[in-house]
Amino acid sequence: MKKQFVESLTAGSRVEDTFVLAEKRLARKKDGADYLTLQLSDRTGSLSAVAWDNVEKLGSVAAAGDFVRITGSVGEYRGALQIIVKEMTVEDPSSVAAADFLPATGQDVDQMFDRLVRMFQTMETPPLRDLLTAFFADADFVERFKKAPAAKMMHHAYIGGLLEHCLSMALLADRIARHYGGVDRDRLLAGVVLHDVGKVREFDYQHRIDYSDEGRLVGHIAIGLEMLDEKIRLVDGFPEEERRLLKHMIVSHHGAMEYGSPEPPKTVEAVLLHYIDEIDSKVNGIREFIAAQGAEDAWTPYHRVLGRHFYRGSGGK
Amino acid sequence: MKKQFVESLTAGSRVEDTFVLAEKRLARKKDGADYLTLQLSDRTGSLSAVAWDNVEKLGSVAAAGDFVRITGSVGEYRGALQIIVKEMTVEDPSSVAAADFLPATGQDVDQMFDRLVRMFQTMETPPLRDLLTAFFADADFVERFKKAPAAKMMHHAYIGGLLEHCLSMALLADRIARHYGGVDRDRLLAGVVLHDVGKVREFDYQHRIDYSDEGRLVGHIAIGLEMLDEKIRLVDGFPEEERRLLKHMIVSHHGAMEYGSPEPPKTVEAVLLHYIDEIDSKVNGIREFIAAQGAEDAWTPYHRVLGRHFYRGSGGK
Amino acid sequence: MKKQFVESLTAGSRVEDTFVLAEKRLARKKDGADYLTLQLSDRTGSLSAVAWDNVEKLGSVAAAGDFVRITGSVGEYRGALQIIVKEMTVEDPSSVAAADFLPATGQDVDQMFDRLVRMFQTMETPPLRDLLTAFFADADFVERFKKAPAAKMMHHAYIGGLLEHCLSMALLADRIARHYGGVDRDRLLAGVVLHDVGKVREFDYQHRIDYSDEGRLVGHIAIGLEMLDEKIRLVDGFPEEERRLLKHMIVSHHGAMEYGSPEPPKTVEAVLLHYIDEIDSKVNGIREFIAAQGAEDAWTPYHRVLGRHFYRGSGGK
Amino acid sequence: MKKQFVESLTAGSRVEDTFVLAEKRLARKKDGADYLTLQLSDRTGSLSAVAWDNVEKLGSVAAAGDFVRITGSVGEYRGALQIIVKEMTVEDPSSVAAADFLPATGQDVDQMFDRLVRMFQTMETPPLRDLLTAFFADADFVERFKKAPAAKMMHHAYIGGLLEHCLSMALLADRIARHYGGVDRDRLLAGVVLHDVGKVREFDYQHRIDYSDEGRLVGHIAIGLEMLDEKIRLVDGFPEEERRLLKHMIVSHHGAMEYGSPEPPKTVEAVLLHYIDEIDSKVNGIREFIAAQGAEDAWTPYHRVLGRHFYRGSGGK
Amino acid sequence: MKKQFVESLTAGSRVEDTFVLAEKRLARKKDGADYLTLQLSDRTGSLSAVAWDNVEKLGSVAAAGDFVRITGSVGEYRGALQIIVKEMTVEDPSSVAAADFLPATGQDVDQMFDRLVRMFQTMETPPLRDLLTAFFADADFVERFKKAPAAKMMHHAYIGGLLEHCLSMALLADRIARHYGGVDRDRLLAGVVLHDVGKVREFDYQHRIDYSDEGRLVGHIAIGLEMLDEKIRLVDGFPEEERRLLKHMIVSHHGAMEYGSPEPPKTVEAVLLHYIDEIDSKVNGIREFIAAQGAEDAWTPYHRVLGRHFYRGSGGK
Amino acid sequence: MKKQFVESLTAGSRVEDTFVLAEKRLARKKDGADYLTLQLSDRTGSLSAVAWDNVEKLGSVAAAGDFVRITGSVGEYRGALQIIVKEMTVEDPSSVAAADFLPATGQDVDQMFDRLVRMFQTMETPPLRDLLTAFFADADFVERFKKAPAAKMMHHAYIGGLLEHCLSMALLADRIARHYGGVDRDRLLAGVVLHDVGKVREFDYQHRIDYSDEGRLVGHIAIGLEMLDEKIRLVDGFPEEERRLLKHMIVSHHGAMEYGSPEPPKTVEAVLLHYIDEIDSKVNGIREFIAAQGAEDAWTPYHRVLGRHFYRGSGGK
Repeated sequence: MKKQFVESLTAGSRVEDTFVLAEKRLARKKDGADYLTLQLSDRTGSLSAVAWDNVEKLGSVAAAGDFVRITGSVGEYRGALQIIVKEMTVEDPSSVAAADFLPATGQDVDQMFDRLVRMFQTMETPPLRDLLTAFFADADFVERFKKAPAAKMMHHAYIGGLLEHCLSMALLADRIARHYGGVDRDRLLAGVVLHDVGKVREFDYQHRIDYSDEGRLVGHIAIGLEMLDEKIRLVDGFPEEERRLLKHMIVSHHGAMEYGSPEPPKTVEAVLLHYIDEIDSKVNGIREFIAAQGAEDAWTPYHRVLGRHFYRGSGGK
Repeated sequence: MKKQFVESLTAGSRVEDTFVLAEKRLARKKDGADYLTLQLSDRTGSLSAVAWDNVEKLGSVAAAGDFVRITGSVGEYRGALQIIVKEMTVEDPSSVAAADFLPATGQDVDQMFDRLVRMFQTMETPPLRDLLTAFFADADFVERFKKAPAAKMMHHAYIGGLLEHCLSMALLADRIARHYGGVDRDRLLAGVVLHDVGKVREFDYQHRIDYSDEGRLVGHIAIGLEMLDEKIRLVDGFPEEERRLLKHMIVSHHGAMEYGSPEPPKTVEAVLLHYIDEIDSKVNGIREFIAAQGAEDAWTPYHRVLGRHFYRGSGGK
Repeated sequence: MKKQFVESLTAGSRVEDTFVLAEKRLARKKDGADYLTLQLSDRTGSLSAVAWDNVEKLGSVAAAGDFVRITGSVGEYRGALQIIVKEMTVEDPSSVAAADFLPATGQDVDQMFDRLVRMFQTMETPPLRDLLTAFFADADFVERFKKAPAAKMMHHAYIGGLLEHCLSMALLADRIARHYGGVDRDRLLAGVVLHDVGKVREFDYQHRIDYSDEGRLVGHIAIGLEMLDEKIRLVDGFPEEERRLLKHMIVSHHGAMEYGSPEPPKTVEAVLLHYIDEIDSKVNGIREFIAAQGAEDAWTPYHRVLGRHFYRGSGGK
Repeated sequence: MKKQFVESLTAGSRVEDTFVLAEKRLARKKDGADYLTLQLSDRTGSLSAVAWDNVEKLGSVAAAGDFVRITGSVGEYRGALQIIVKEMTVEDPSSVAAADFLPATGQDVDQMFDRLVRMFQTMETPPLRDLLTAFFADADFVERFKKAPAAKMMHHAYIGGLLEHCLSMALLADRIARHYGGVDRDRLLAGVVLHDVGKVREFDYQHRIDYSDEGRLVGHIAIGLEMLDEKIRLVDGFPEEERRLLKHMIVSHHGAMEYGSPEPPKTVEAVLLHYIDEIDSKVNGIREFIAAQGAEDAWTPYHRVLGRHFYRGSGGK
Repeated sequence: MKKQFVESLTAGSRVEDTFVLAEKRLARKKDGADYLTLQLSDRTGSLSAVAWDNVEKLGSVAAAGDFVRITGSVGEYRGALQIIVKEMTVEDPSSVAAADFLPATGQDVDQMFDRLVRMFQTMETPPLRDLLTAFFADADFVERFKKAPAAKMMHHAYIGGLLEHCLSMALLADRIARHYGGVDRDRLLAGVVLHDVGKVREFDYQHRIDYSDEGRLVGHIAIGLEMLDEKIRLVDGFPEEERRLLKHMIVSHHGAMEYGSPEPPKTVEAVLLHYIDEIDSKVNGIREFIAAQGAEDAWTPYHRVLGRHFYRGSGGK
Repeated sequence: MKKQFVESLTAGSRVEDTFVLAEKRLARKKDGADYLTLQLSDRTGSLSAVAWDNVEKLGSVAAAGDFVRITGSVGEYRGALQIIVKEMTVEDPSSVAAADFLPATGQDVDQMFDRLVRMFQTMETPPLRDLLTAFFADADFVERFKKAPAAKMMHHAYIGGLLEHCLSMALLADRIARHYGGVDRDRLLAGVVLHDVGKVREFDYQHRIDYSDEGRLVGHIAIGLEMLDEKIRLVDGFPEEERRLLKHMIVSHHGAMEYGSPEPPKTVEAVLLHYIDEIDSKVNGIREFIAAQGAEDAWTPYHRVLGRHFYRGSGGK
């Protein structure tokens, strides 16, 4: 079990623990000798490291993305901490707790998943219920679905984030469907789970959260469409009309062509799905942004993507 | 009480009832004689009319916007019905039922208003409750608030539409505030009523729904800010911080500068207010657009502002 | 065989031939009697029609979209020709020549198709050649692919337009791939056929050219992805990398998110595919626009979508 | 009186003078001891500082934004000057000359103000003259109006900048109103002063120039509307039409909704006001940008917001 | 001299006067006979005309754009006046007063021109004065410059409009240059005349105002650059630096690349030129738009290009 | 001949060779003594340098942009190499090989130029052939045309890049013109050479690649138009129509007003020219971007201007 975390290392201490080898580069000193510069990370942060000896061996022992066991010590270089690496060996992923290496949801994953499953058991449209059952009966899918982040940055960008986002959206969708009579609640709920289902393959989230090759080339909309087709083939007599409407929700959930949706939402359910997605991702993203800053100031720093400072209030002024 | 409505007039019938004089223009025949062309309307539609005789007198008796009692008959001109006006007198507005002349909400205005008031009585922040009380104790405001439309077109564009929109938003806001812990429910509810309060003066909705002079020059954001200041002066010791946050919600509710908000939403409550407004106006607008079309086709005609056809479904295809 | 075409009908002549019933509406005369207003079309244009007698029977005999045999005569109404319908019976689609009813490519469809097939036989990448073979061995697909238009308006908006567009793009792609060394010609050619393959289902083009329900809800990108998956399942051991790159070309061929592509082109082949598509659709669209106007003027009328007049030259001025 | 300014400090000299404590942060050395890093500024610039001793006491004696009297010396750290702080005490704002701490207009504030007042005395519309009189009779307003900057960056971003901007605009408006007959000169001049009047509260400019809480939440348009209403209440019988037109100028002066104006300019005077504001802010901003660079080069560096280099000329080349 | 104008023709009157033949089309009656439909115009408007007899001869006698002498009478067709043409002969342009056929400035062209020339005589930079002299010594240029419109629509869209626009801009530039010290008044004034000089060839304005072939293909920026080069060749030793700065003003006067300027303004003079152009074209365009509407309403109709209604005031409300 | 290049300098070695003096600045040490900081570059990169002695003399001996012969040694400062300059003398440009100092095309310039000339000799339109002959007979132009880059960054940003770009476009244009019958091949080829001809003056590329004063003020479109006019004057009886169409291609080649083209393409040839330019610049730019990165990763870093990562493939994954 991992005991030493990046955020708690101090100058002078000895290092003997496992990290993710986030980057590795061979460099050459002025005197012509080679050395290695590395980047080591865990869920609490990232630190630069350097290896002066055994460079050839250490350089070939592990690749970026591997878990590596490091023996060495903490020094300082230009005012920042730096790990001096003496030994490095690859660690078998099965022997480490992934949760030590990536930021994760603060909520209980299994409880969230159970709650989501229970919601879908209340659905009254048999083909939709059967479709969701097909997804949740696929153990490999469920394992990935419980781990995947909902984004690389901006909102729910942590292990379990996709599940947390889907559950929150499902609960919200349920409330909103009740508010507006005539909304097809089951179709909306199915859309909530399916619209982002492609994210389980769009991202790599074994050792770090980043886009996968498939994610960058194809994107979660196209992956999700493919996953939906695979599962629909398992449901006898799934109605063609329903299939199109689910695909429509996946295809249109970004809300407009300029955000990468091939079609804009054309049913009330697809319109609602888009807004529920917007609300839940913005509320989560803004709250995390506010929480990441110290509590002293009334205002957060400038949020580059959203283009504004957020106000956390001035206490009882 | 009005008995003859535009939609039910037929060629050859006699006309004797009250209409809104929507337009009036003096024209000259080829033989040099003058005549009047008019546009007469009520809540069911609008029809052209013409007066060949007594032109001088009829032309001076009423102005556009007046209620007028018409005596005449229905003829046809180039394939369309046309009223031949014999006599026209101005009607006192107090003697007519406004509801006969403008489209109106299908819901009970007083019940909606009571429900909204009861919601605000549950608020637990005294200054906000006092502020809303100040608004609802102003009989003149309440009368206008119950009648105002929420827009000229697009959504809730009918008498009572503003109230219907606010109530729907308040109920939605209540559900969403419960979903996300930590949201200031009272502030959000206050924002729901106040964000569009300027619309009671932005529109004219006595005889037709259109922008008022003040509405076009100043807009409902600025009018709402002014109305808020007036009522805050009636609440002793209203907190400055709260005043700014309410103003912020009015100012930012369009969501971004490019939609005419001087500032974008910078608190979670302001962000939520914007989305709740978006959802409720879009759902109402799209549903009305679908309902306005015949039920035969699976698709509506093209919606010019939203840039798409909407899908009403193909039954059991 | 159809002998009477819309463009050649004259007032006073008798009508006895087959048309597409493009629209049908029941109306009521001022005297309370019902009548039918119809729109009848063939590949040369469209004409309004009216039926005064046997309204109930004629109104139920056929639906919009049917081929109908019309007996009647040509009259005039408000300066335009109008068919007075005496009898109307539904015609079996198998008994009519579709080419009489829809605009079609001026080129030989079978020759174009053979040429395209021969191009793909020169491909040197076995899995891609096998994939294309799977498409072209599917008789149902081939039949649709030979008929489909490439668009509803703007370019290649006629029967056979998709094939004409794909062949022209393939020839162009071949030339451009030879120009730039290092381009994967086979992948680019495969992308040329596959990028728009979803259009065989995005459009209805039996009796008129319009979007299908599936086309409007899902769009040709998502349909094409699904069709690709279906055929890849028929090719043993199709490489995963190749599958992603083909999907990437389908997904990115609009060139940017703001044109509805979930991802922008990220390989040289995908970038080239986008530009070849742009060139071929613009050249075809502009030439058809110029040709549709009389030859007298140096300039075309204003092209609303492209926002300019086009110059056809002033002869030897 | 302040004698030591940031721009003239040199390594090795002793420091004993007053600065603005722009930032204050507690840090921890590798050996576990705490120290303070500070940022000290005056109108000539900003310098980092550090306190190694008495950390607890010094850390609690003053807050960011305070004037502080510093005793210490100037050292160097990584090639840059750094103040080593020995003692720090809070200074009473009334005992310092604000002009020493913030950049200020190069012009005489009182002369500018007198000139502006004289212009308004030439106005021939009594209610507008009375309104301006109400503003200029408010000593608290006048004091702020003479100090406020017109912006945080970009143009007139210094003490007295708002007054300088308003006066320049008023003189320009006078010339332009004379050029175009039929322009309501008085209304245009009133708009010139009022359009940015909210900036006296939008910014904090006691010790540094930044947005105030109210400024960020509500913005100068909404603040200005409120200030206008307060003063109009002091003018008996101020005409409603005039009030709307002034509000219209405040509301529309950014020129278009996409720049945060709830309404675009709809009168000739409002259109002129917008352009005069544009001209004066751009001319001032560009000139300051050019002046801030050395005089050697023909071109300025790239201006990120305006997206170009500016040309200062190449002498007699 | 022309006596009969389109706006004053009445049904039944005889026509014998000169018009512009704006359009000419051959049509065929239902009985197979040919007839001509024409459009005849003068500075007061445009009217449709028809010729039933001598069709072959009349059809070949004149081309669109010619001045034609018409003999015939005024009838009515579908509620609108229509000229029945009996005879039509081409009129020599030299024998007609162009001012009768195109809308023209209300100001005295020669007085405006003199005033502009006098302004340029005050210039103190010899090469710029010489350059302007070269333009004004070119009789052909001066003739066109006095006639050209400044636009086809929107502002100064009448004979003499370009001169009126340039003079107004020059007077404004003079005032603004005096306001801001350090502006190169001569360069700015030269820019005012030169920036739109290409419009003398961009438009056709002999018989109607429209773009010329050269105007549509090349545009007034490129034409103006060419005209500038032609005249600079006539000035001995014209400084290269000055030539570039004048070209810069022509090239950048639309203010930004997105409005078709290859470069944005990069000198204070070029920035001022852009705004002066904006002010003068907007003020003229808005005033003409307001004046073109009846004086009854407080608001103009919706201005499609500027996207708003304009307010003309409500009198003493 | 230059022997020491920036990329191969190592700490401790002696320097005695020629470089471009890219920047020069006078600085002052804490002790009050002056020193010089320099930037020295050649085609392999750029390095900072410093001169501690003879500062006054060295500072006046050369200006930024000069070739300078440096005597000194290589040291290190804060982890980076730095040249300590002992002596510096200006080198006569005629005595150095420009190719040593700027990045250059990898292809043979003379072969490229010959191939381009041979293409133009196949043109069948005499005036166009004569026009191109006039350009290629101008030795000064040819010398610049062979050296000019096509851009400062993004694509073909090296000596000979403009020629390489034009030749590649010409070959592509030839293939595309053959593909589409009816395209005027000669006009398209002429457009290919002429559209960017202004770049020979838009850039400075003697010692470094940057915009010239004329380039920044006027841009290559306007310069190209002027150069075209100069050469057309050398061709007797050059047709006006052809002149306009060539100018149209120069003016419109950016494809749309928002990219700085005063007019959009309005002929098929101008449309093709724009796309051929787009294809060739994007293919070259993307390939150079991919090549500039190490070959290890499947993905390039993020391309800021194009807004994406590019995929170089994952080998046989």
